[in-house]
Amino acid sequence: MRRFVVVGHRASTSPGFPLDDLAGGAGRMDLLLNAANAALLVSHDIRRDAEITLVLLGPPDPPVAIRLAGERLQSYSPDIRTDAGLVRAALERVSRIEREASPGVFVSRRGLAEVLDGIQDPLVELREDGKDIREVELPRDVAFVLSDTTDLTEEEEATVSRKRIAVCRVGPRSIHTDDAIAITHNELDRRHPP
Amino acid sequence: MRRFVVVGHRASTSPGFPLDDLAGGAGRMDLLLNAANAALLVSHDIRRDAEITLVLLGPPDPPVAIRLAGERLQSYSPDIRTDAGLVRAALERVSRIEREASPGVFVSRRGLAEVLDGIQDPLVELREDGKDIREVELPRDVAFVLSDTTDLTEEEEATVSRKRIAVCRVGPRSIHTDDAIAITHNELDRRHPP
Repeated sequence: MRRFVVVGHRASTSPGFPLDDLAGGAGRMDLLLNAANAALLVSHDIRRDAEITLVLLGPPDPPVAIRLAGERLQSYSPDIRTDAGLVRAALERVSRIEREASPGVFVSRRGLAEVLDGIQDPLVELREDGKDIREVELPRDVAFVLSDTTDLTEEEEATVSRKRIAVCRVGPRSIHTDDAIAITHNELDRRHPP
Repeated sequence: MRRFVVVGHRASTSPGFPLDDLAGGAGRMDLLLNAANAALLVSHDIRRDAEITLVLLGPPDPPVAIRLAGERLQSYSPDIRTDAGLVRAALERVSRIEREASPGVFVSRRGLAEVLDGIQDPLVELREDGKDIREVELPRDVAFVLSDTTDLTEEEEATVSRKRIAVCRVGPRSIHTDDAIAITHNELDRRHPP
């Protein structure tokens, strides 16, 4: 299983966040949903061996973790506006214990530390100043943690650094989260064909 | 300069295409605009040395070429709904001779063949059954042509094959157009730092 965890520092935790303003009023929910597309979708199919957890830390009621599991998702759309509807519906059902709000869409009251505690696979931090991913040994089952447009906070970085096995960068330029995920998948697809 | 050309076989050529249904009613305009993001954007900045031409072939009035030039764009948004507004405005001003509808957004009545005729750089076709991009020599100034969710038609393929210097794949899996562009940029960023 390949897992991705993306921290959305401003991402809305309101089930009423605006579908017409995912980049603004919803706190860069567009970035998180584009990341989900990169993590979960291939041409005409879903990656059944992948999942992504979006850690929503924006107002009004953080934290919330939305976990999208490729093996359970049905007809997940590349249209992020449609996917935003799934996230909104999940935000109606937040509870301490994770529950499945719709097929493949899991929701819980968890922040980054608790999400990482629930992951047993080796954890790799993706960050611009890491080691070139092409030169790092990566197991088939692996988890990656990334931030949104802002760096992880000191506290988040401390949490991650206690669990990670490596810090990697995907290339020489600082790029968008979804592009970094696409490149990471590509590297793993080459090393560990399904 | 790195250039990308993406063929949108169903992409709407109506200036009134629906902003709320980019994936459906607008003929997968979402796919084209996600491709534009991957081609043009890095973290907090625009790639000034990149451009992408979207070849719109859907109803009611094809073909139309929308060329987004990184060196001229001002405040291009990662929010595809906002970018769709730029495309709609450009579709109000289609003419045989290319004109700049807004800064960095050029529009013309051109199909794939005419768009490729206007490109002097070596052309590479990105296709699933090509040679691994990591094993192909690529110059700094290069153009790539890709299709949307469907393969190029026989006629398009013939047009491309007359001009291309290589057919490449980005990896072992068939992936989305925007992800393929992100991986292509990454490969070139590694070989030809800005």
